[in-house]
Amino acid sequence: MLETSGPALATLTPWVTREPAPLTPEALASIDAWWRAANYLAVGQIYLLDNALLREPLTRDHIKPRLLGHWGTTPGLNFLYAHLNRAIQERSLNTIYIAGPGHGGPGMVANAYLEGTYSEIYPDIARSEDGVQKLFRQFSFPGGIPSHASPELPGSIHEGGELGYALSHAYGAAFDNPTLLVAAVVGDGEAETGPLATSWHSNKFIDPIQDGVVLPILHLNGYKIANPTVLARIPEDELLDLMRGYGHTPYIVSGGFDGEDPFLVHERMAATLDTVLNQIAEIKASAAAADAAGEDFARPRWPMIILRTPKGWTCPSVIDGNQVEGTWRAHQVPLSNARDTAAHTSLLEDWMHSYRPEELFDEAGAPVALITDLAPVGELRMSANPVANGGLLRRDLVLPDFRDFAVDVPAPGATLDEATRVLGGFLAEVIRLNPENFRIFGPDETASNRLAPPVYEVTAKQWNAEMRPGDTNLARAGRVMEMLSEHQCQGWLEGYLLTGRHGVYNCYEAFIHIIDSMFNQHAKWLKVTSEIPWRRSIASLNYLLSSHVWRQDHNGFSHQDPGFIDHVVNKSADVVRVYLPFDANTLLSTYDHCLRSVDYVNVVIAGKQPAPNLLTIEEAVAHCTRGLGIFDWAGTETPGQAPDVVLAAAGDVPTLEVLAAAAILREHAPDLAVRVVNVVDLMRLQSAEDHPHGLTDAAFDAIFTPDKPIIFAYHGYPWLIHRLTYKRHGHENLHARGYKENGTTTTPFDMVMMNDLDRYQLVIDVIDRTPGLGARSGLLRQRMQDARLAAWQYTRDHGEDAPAVVDWTWAAASGTAGSVGAASADDLAASVRAAASTGGDNS
Amino acid sequence: MLETSGPALATLTPWVTREPAPLTPEALASIDAWWRAANYLAVGQIYLLDNALLREPLTRDHIKPRLLGHWGTTPGLNFLYAHLNRAIQERSLNTIYIAGPGHGGPGMVANAYLEGTYSEIYPDIARSEDGVQKLFRQFSFPGGIPSHASPELPGSIHEGGELGYALSHAYGAAFDNPTLLVAAVVGDGEAETGPLATSWHSNKFIDPIQDGVVLPILHLNGYKIANPTVLARIPEDELLDLMRGYGHTPYIVSGGFDGEDPFLVHERMAATLDTVLNQIAEIKASAAAADAAGEDFARPRWPMIILRTPKGWTCPSVIDGNQVEGTWRAHQVPLSNARDTAAHTSLLEDWMHSYRPEELFDEAGAPVALITDLAPVGELRMSANPVANGGLLRRDLVLPDFRDFAVDVPAPGATLDEATRVLGGFLAEVIRLNPENFRIFGPDETASNRLAPPVYEVTAKQWNAEMRPGDTNLARAGRVMEMLSEHQCQGWLEGYLLTGRHGVYNCYEAFIHIIDSMFNQHAKWLKVTSEIPWRRSIASLNYLLSSHVWRQDHNGFSHQDPGFIDHVVNKSADVVRVYLPFDANTLLSTYDHCLRSVDYVNVVIAGKQPAPNLLTIEEAVAHCTRGLGIFDWAGTETPGQAPDVVLAAAGDVPTLEVLAAAAILREHAPDLAVRVVNVVDLMRLQSAEDHPHGLTDAAFDAIFTPDKPIIFAYHGYPWLIHRLTYKRHGHENLHARGYKENGTTTTPFDMVMMNDLDRYQLVIDVIDRTPGLGARSGLLRQRMQDARLAAWQYTRDHGEDAPAVVDWTWAAASGTAGSVGAASADDLAASVRAAASTGGDNS
Repeated sequence: MLETSGPALATLTPWVTREPAPLTPEALASIDAWWRAANYLAVGQIYLLDNALLREPLTRDHIKPRLLGHWGTTPGLNFLYAHLNRAIQERSLNTIYIAGPGHGGPGMVANAYLEGTYSEIYPDIARSEDGVQKLFRQFSFPGGIPSHASPELPGSIHEGGELGYALSHAYGAAFDNPTLLVAAVVGDGEAETGPLATSWHSNKFIDPIQDGVVLPILHLNGYKIANPTVLARIPEDELLDLMRGYGHTPYIVSGGFDGEDPFLVHERMAATLDTVLNQIAEIKASAAAADAAGEDFARPRWPMIILRTPKGWTCPSVIDGNQVEGTWRAHQVPLSNARDTAAHTSLLEDWMHSYRPEELFDEAGAPVALITDLAPVGELRMSANPVANGGLLRRDLVLPDFRDFAVDVPAPGATLDEATRVLGGFLAEVIRLNPENFRIFGPDETASNRLAPPVYEVTAKQWNAEMRPGDTNLARAGRVMEMLSEHQCQGWLEGYLLTGRHGVYNCYEAFIHIIDSMFNQHAKWLKVTSEIPWRRSIASLNYLLSSHVWRQDHNGFSHQDPGFIDHVVNKSADVVRVYLPFDANTLLSTYDHCLRSVDYVNVVIAGKQPAPNLLTIEEAVAHCTRGLGIFDWAGTETPGQAPDVVLAAAGDVPTLEVLAAAAILREHAPDLAVRVVNVVDLMRLQSAEDHPHGLTDAAFDAIFTPDKPIIFAYHGYPWLIHRLTYKRHGHENLHARGYKENGTTTTPFDMVMMNDLDRYQLVIDVIDRTPGLGARSGLLRQRMQDARLAAWQYTRDHGEDAPAVVDWTWAAASGTAGSVGAASADDLAASVRAAASTGGDNS
Repeated sequence: MLETSGPALATLTPWVTREPAPLTPEALASIDAWWRAANYLAVGQIYLLDNALLREPLTRDHIKPRLLGHWGTTPGLNFLYAHLNRAIQERSLNTIYIAGPGHGGPGMVANAYLEGTYSEIYPDIARSEDGVQKLFRQFSFPGGIPSHASPELPGSIHEGGELGYALSHAYGAAFDNPTLLVAAVVGDGEAETGPLATSWHSNKFIDPIQDGVVLPILHLNGYKIANPTVLARIPEDELLDLMRGYGHTPYIVSGGFDGEDPFLVHERMAATLDTVLNQIAEIKASAAAADAAGEDFARPRWPMIILRTPKGWTCPSVIDGNQVEGTWRAHQVPLSNARDTAAHTSLLEDWMHSYRPEELFDEAGAPVALITDLAPVGELRMSANPVANGGLLRRDLVLPDFRDFAVDVPAPGATLDEATRVLGGFLAEVIRLNPENFRIFGPDETASNRLAPPVYEVTAKQWNAEMRPGDTNLARAGRVMEMLSEHQCQGWLEGYLLTGRHGVYNCYEAFIHIIDSMFNQHAKWLKVTSEIPWRRSIASLNYLLSSHVWRQDHNGFSHQDPGFIDHVVNKSADVVRVYLPFDANTLLSTYDHCLRSVDYVNVVIAGKQPAPNLLTIEEAVAHCTRGLGIFDWAGTETPGQAPDVVLAAAGDVPTLEVLAAAAILREHAPDLAVRVVNVVDLMRLQSAEDHPHGLTDAAFDAIFTPDKPIIFAYHGYPWLIHRLTYKRHGHENLHARGYKENGTTTTPFDMVMMNDLDRYQLVIDVIDRTPGLGARSGLLRQRMQDARLAAWQYTRDHGEDAPAVVDWTWAAASGTAGSVGAASADDLAASVRAAASTGGDNS
């Protein structure tokens, strides 16, 4: 049970200024003892199976057979943790800690253990010799914990297995947490990554009034796996210029080299931390004063710290003649033969004794008061801060009734709407009703994806860099976060969700691949947390992908990629959901569902161009609830009898083409029993055993038939449909059409033609795969080929799609307004014949 | 036919210093005329179908029905192009131009057209009124060209559809091109991306002696799609600090605001460009002098230029009451109703007339001499520089005989080797033999992936930041490029390949997803160039992915992801190849093949841990040439008769487990005819119609049988095997095992057990799916379950894998050395029973 005594974080008066004063000897001793204890516990985790407190001489048998984990970054992380604890105590700072450097696990676990949190959450790992032993054993051990600040670690929202997102996560946590300090340690290795390099600019997107504070601490230990780091090998003035150029006020703390007494480094660190925290308090105070006076204020140059210490600080300096401390050789396990080489066993023993464990742990094996007194109380402990177990703080969104935003659908396809713009109206109301815990993130595409204007009628884009007259929809505080970095948007949103809030990521479909690997890490985090009882549910990560592959005719081949779905479905079925709503009402229904869900990644792909509204809102709800269904109104089957063929679609453009194909068949082959199926929830296609949303085989057969031809027009790469359905009875008869990598740059209908997803080709597919169509089929097939050619030729001649295609509507084509659908194809075909007979000069 | 008169680029004496002098009136007039002409041609491409030179009044019918493309970035790109041309002429600079900003296509096409290159390559688009008309019509038109600097554009190596890679590509081009100047224009939108933000640090990895020069030009036009840009909204001193912090000497050129006379901006730009080029020449000269004297020299602070001009400069200032020029409204098509609104038609006409086309084009419609005289001659034209059509310059690698590096294989599995370390020996020799056109790129993982030490015996990591005593394998010039940014490595390598050289990208498997989207863009580039006759073949992009999913037991769940293969196979089959060599000799054979190939992306996944050598080098060559095959020596089938079951594997760990399963079956079910199949070339599984490497159905059936159970142990996500084989006869009988997302952190064998890919599970699969095994099967099944449980329990007890698993060898297990294989399983099972009977205290 987590100890939560101490002040309620919400009642704290943060950001106090304190008179600078040197550390007292007691404080110095306490900080150093903490640091030694955390270092000891980290080394123990890497090496020891037994004899945890070194109360007997160290032998081979005490040492793990596989030495895993990483030492290099650990002493720096521990050093900072100890110093932050002093400051938290002195100032009652509501603080979380982001361990950016790779493989910081052993250190972070040690700190959570010293704070008591670890034992409170995992009572088996008590504050006793036995507890220490178990703590050591579980680390990188079968059935144990990994070497990162993984979800099993209390206080962590940032695993850091993949590097580069420490600052993005930190800022995401700080948004709308005005009393929160996020101490974000950036490794100098990860500082070389692209995402980290741009994430410094997050300080142009943080509001001193409504948001918290991120304190970046660039830890220059100088080395990566096998190389020096770039930022450690540029002159100090250049590094300072860089940090000033990023908009910070940098402070340097350097020490520990050449055997320097750590006490001297402690003193410098403490003094710098005091200076920095005072500066933060002053920035906060002056911003608040200006805000109260209704005055503007300049973007603060927030402080940041550069901490320069030796990599692997305090490990054996030289091993087997090689310098280890202060080099890349300290990155992983410095004494890799500690078990099998007696000299190394002895070195390890000396190393561990150098921390003087006998001073650090009492008779029972618990950390002594000198150490534990440095831990803040209750939720002020960074490892116990509820912000880092965001589900504890998550409040359900106050959602308006999405039905209020529905478009009117007097008949299928009778009206057109831009689905994302309609959703924008709903999201605007969500923003209005949830002014403190919901944001939209996107790389400069919120307007392009047409959530605007509705969204900007209730909020603005948060922008803390310079503003100029004429700027539109920018404000110091706002609910839309836009920076042209998909990484930044993803990292911010992850940090925001992990700390208990809600959000939407709005992006072009093709370029969401930029964050493929970040999605991986988040999905893995969700997968693991689902098995950790004390981790509470967080809001789902909701993607809204528009400007999708089928409307990238004008932007060209580089903007065409529907593969994010394929990427997503590789992750655990417990975690991922994929939706392809095809019109405004299905998008509304889908998104309402997503905003209510927890612990998922919801990928929603929707159109932003005017598209036919097919279902009333109640029909849309019913359809989306089922996830897929038969469009009775579009097919020609006889109730109670099996159809001759199934025309299925997933995605807005495929659905339109399937409907147009169905209309042509209705006109030209009226006795063919056509079933039209639409899939909104793609995971319904998978087997029930593979995905919680998967249909049973019986349900699948009832919709798709076990034995009739299925022509499936799909939004993405067609083989995904095969992958999802290969276990189904009907799979042998399934023919999937989808996007091909063929380099088109054309018009919308030309785009579908180039990918053989057009209405005419779908009719040809039906003809070619449905037995018993009879003699008419040859003529109809020829008509379809003529119509395709005509449609293609029209684009070459006119630079746009033929009116017969553009103006096609279901209402007209399906017979209520005569045989327009057929006429369109025939008109097009006639134009081909005419062209052919006149020699075909189409210029 | 491309005009190549003029000096051979290789004979140029570059990097001359010139006395600063103001522009002559003639030069000014010429630069301005070029700029106006390029702007005119860009506007025309966006808007006009007809009346290209405005020789009659502009009407609705002259305007395209769909107005596509982007104006905003164009005038800046054209401005720089004109100025660079002057400098190229004056200094005979061997130069290429990288257009980083998005949608720079119309401008870059215009410049190539003015240089004559466009008409030389596309004779139909002549330097005449008719040619201009065709140039306009084809832009963003069906059957035409896209809106980026796409492969169709001569002089381009950087399409820029996805933003962020301008500088990485530029540096990649500059490596080993000592006389090359790469003028790299960075948009202030793309400057916000992570990859671009870190790519400035490329200047710590470029050698003033052996490499060329990158001149970054940050074009601050202030706006993205719908927002201001960050770097345009920080104070100038902060921006200068940032550029100095990145290690550059920044120069600012600002102008064109508030109607400033462009001639004044031309003068400032020309003067700055002269200053900068002189500084570059001085850096080059002093570095050369120091090098000749054998002295070290400090890393130069290379110059860079910040160009601040209005977005959409020279377009109508105000449209419909909104400020357009100088705002985000100029981003795309400023007059979107030019066809349908008479006032806009008229505004467009005025806009185009503002460039005074009558001064720019002669009677025939060709650009006048004032303009064409500014174009350099022959290959000095940036649009005609062979560096930007790298296939022209590509020389085949001089390859040693890979057989010389083969490991000895007296019997299958009799010896162990680290496959990547063996490959390292081969690559070291490749480096030795190709000192100027082959490099290895990787994010600090070359040593971790065990290409070291061999590679570092012949070369070093190139490092131009500070060096310190004790640094290992670093040098000012070297063949290995390591920075902890997967993006940077990918971008550098792409730039290197696109300019005619060769390379390898060496990375952890899980984190190669970081460049998923960059791979997409490169694969699309290759796909398009394969259809452009004048684009010559470039070397393949060769990935070497190690530290793969099956050996991430210690790094944990975050490092486990085999999905890059899935991502890759979505791209055109013409372009992608995937190989899974399972031992040292198959890796050697595979890599030799890859290094000889062109125009592909080759994904090679290999182990770095000691693994059994299974095939002699000649067997490996035969096996890899076929891409897959039957391991006769491992199976128990009778020649000429169909086997009872097929055990197939792809990947090193799956192959080992399949062999162990085969050995168990050989021992315990000797009359079961087991066929063992291994797949190295994954694309062989696809149908011949879907991939050029695909087997015919007959060939597939001959190996996998059409009707026998196939148990397929696969390296990655198992459904990929289904996706690749769903059309095959045998697919109904195929059961694929592979990686699952289940959060393990254990030991190597525990890792395969957690994913049900272990030998015992594979035997159980055989039992469960092979009819006619008889009564023995129940007992064997129980033994296997016991053995699994024992192996699992051993890891929990000891923290490492059981000796019976670790020490297992094919040679011993397969009978030549007795029944060790079976004994292993039985031993393990016995330990389970013993444990159960004693109460199971395993601590």
